[in-house]
Amino acid sequence: MTRVVALAGGVGGAKLADGLQAHLGADLAVVVNTGDDCWRHGLLVMPDHDTVLYNLAGIEQVEWGWGIEGDTHATMAQLGVYGEETWFGLGDRDLALHIVRTARLRAGDRLTDACLGAQRSLGIAARILPMSDDPVATEVRTADGWLEFQEYFVHQRQAPDVLELRFAGIEAATPTTEVRAALSEADAIVIAPSNPLVSVAPILDVPGVRDALAAARDGGVPVAAVSPIIGGRALKGPADRMLAALGHESSAIGVARLYAGLVDTFVLDTEDADAAPAVEALGLRPVVTDTIMRDDAGRARLAGEVLAAVAAHVR
Amino acid sequence: MTRVVALAGGVGGAKLADGLQAHLGADLAVVVNTGDDCWRHGLLVMPDHDTVLYNLAGIEQVEWGWGIEGDTHATMAQLGVYGEETWFGLGDRDLALHIVRTARLRAGDRLTDACLGAQRSLGIAARILPMSDDPVATEVRTADGWLEFQEYFVHQRQAPDVLELRFAGIEAATPTTEVRAALSEADAIVIAPSNPLVSVAPILDVPGVRDALAAARDGGVPVAAVSPIIGGRALKGPADRMLAALGHESSAIGVARLYAGLVDTFVLDTEDADAAPAVEALGLRPVVTDTIMRDDAGRARLAGEVLAAVAAHVR
Repeated sequence: MTRVVALAGGVGGAKLADGLQAHLGADLAVVVNTGDDCWRHGLLVMPDHDTVLYNLAGIEQVEWGWGIEGDTHATMAQLGVYGEETWFGLGDRDLALHIVRTARLRAGDRLTDACLGAQRSLGIAARILPMSDDPVATEVRTADGWLEFQEYFVHQRQAPDVLELRFAGIEAATPTTEVRAALSEADAIVIAPSNPLVSVAPILDVPGVRDALAAARDGGVPVAAVSPIIGGRALKGPADRMLAALGHESSAIGVARLYAGLVDTFVLDTEDADAAPAVEALGLRPVVTDTIMRDDAGRARLAGEVLAAVAAHVR
Repeated sequence: MTRVVALAGGVGGAKLADGLQAHLGADLAVVVNTGDDCWRHGLLVMPDHDTVLYNLAGIEQVEWGWGIEGDTHATMAQLGVYGEETWFGLGDRDLALHIVRTARLRAGDRLTDACLGAQRSLGIAARILPMSDDPVATEVRTADGWLEFQEYFVHQRQAPDVLELRFAGIEAATPTTEVRAALSEADAIVIAPSNPLVSVAPILDVPGVRDALAAARDGGVPVAAVSPIIGGRALKGPADRMLAALGHESSAIGVARLYAGLVDTFVLDTEDADAAPAVEALGLRPVVTDTIMRDDAGRARLAGEVLAAVAAHVR
């Protein structure tokens, strides 16, 4: 097995992608959610892409998992002086990426090319592929109405109850040539432990992506998913409350149900070992292991176990 | 006398404008050169406006005269990682202005409004008015051909001989409503000690500005200029070599000749006192004083002397 595609968004996904890169290098392609991309101060910010980017470059802010370790915030403070909203904090070194990527987009580059350029500059071996070059905007309905994702996620700190989700623009979005090629050439596909409703679902909902996964499975390509829910809770972010609020079960089995029919292998934490029979009953092969990635070694260990599990079933 | 308009560009002009503001507060309008504005990393940078801005806000980098005191350069260093040119250094706090102003322009704001907004945010009493909202690009011909002004000024450190100057776009540029109103309502007009060829000339060459100055003089409004050349040399920048290279005299009298017919009062340094009769012979009233502005007190002193000189002739 060589070529692996991971679908990812957020910190958990970035950690597993980093572990996979340690095993696969340039044979890894990470397809990232762009639904929570947003424009701040006239600059395009891509939280999921950049979280994966900084983790794969080994420069991520370790405590938060996103942003750049040791970054400063002088520009942001000064933006506040000019009356700009400052609740979406952007570090000085981080801003360079938003500036240069936005400049390249305005100069006519594709989003994917602007991202690949930054990845090369940071010396990343794997490729991180935006799910689409077309704009998709994840929106969250709360008691106050529809909110931009980052308004809900960062500004309101995920406090409001989520009543509904939508991905504006997704019907018109197409997967990029690079995403289609990566999926059709993959020897295995891994859905990372990211929020299934707002990180993974937008990727899957880009017209053509579910079909590409189904075609890969039909061709004998193993497809695995790693549960982002451990003991009923998300390690980070609102996935647990969001699942419950939207009528799912906030548990490994609740996630497994969302992926049934799409994946053949489901990796869940030892804490949820007793859910393995229920996973199996869904037609998925359960793999029970320690899914918490505490450090680089932990990332590589979990990635290695996921790869071993799918390798056992490779075409 | 209350309302004064200063024409300025560069560090010397910014210092005198700051001194004038100390006397006049909101009754000062500074019309600034936009010919050396440039786009860097997809952001509009306005060196002359911003030098005046930071000086009037009292936050200028004291040694250089431009940029913000104590600014850091984390974003710029990271832009270099992404392959961007870094010879045009922009500080982190400085970048906030370019980011927010560019965002407002892209949102449809006029350049003047975007600048006035930043001035209010920094608590500046005077108004700094771009000479035009239309793009004008100062270009310098050297042995290598035509260069963008900042390519010559910053990147090539003013080393090449200047063979010719042009202000691309100036025929189509119009002075803003604010500039026209300020000139027509002025009780006095002061040309600051800025480079006459690349800081003051673009302002004067915006169609309508020379006529507005002439109309003001015809209406009895005193117009003064302060020599940027002392003892044959510019305190800062290439004005002296540029004057000589383009067939002028690099001296106070050489500058006075450029302004003859346009101004009635010419302020020159005590070091050049012996040129006073020649200034008078040009039909200008010479005012001889210490024109070096070493500190805030020096700025206010020179500004006070200029104001006293023109007040003696106010309508």
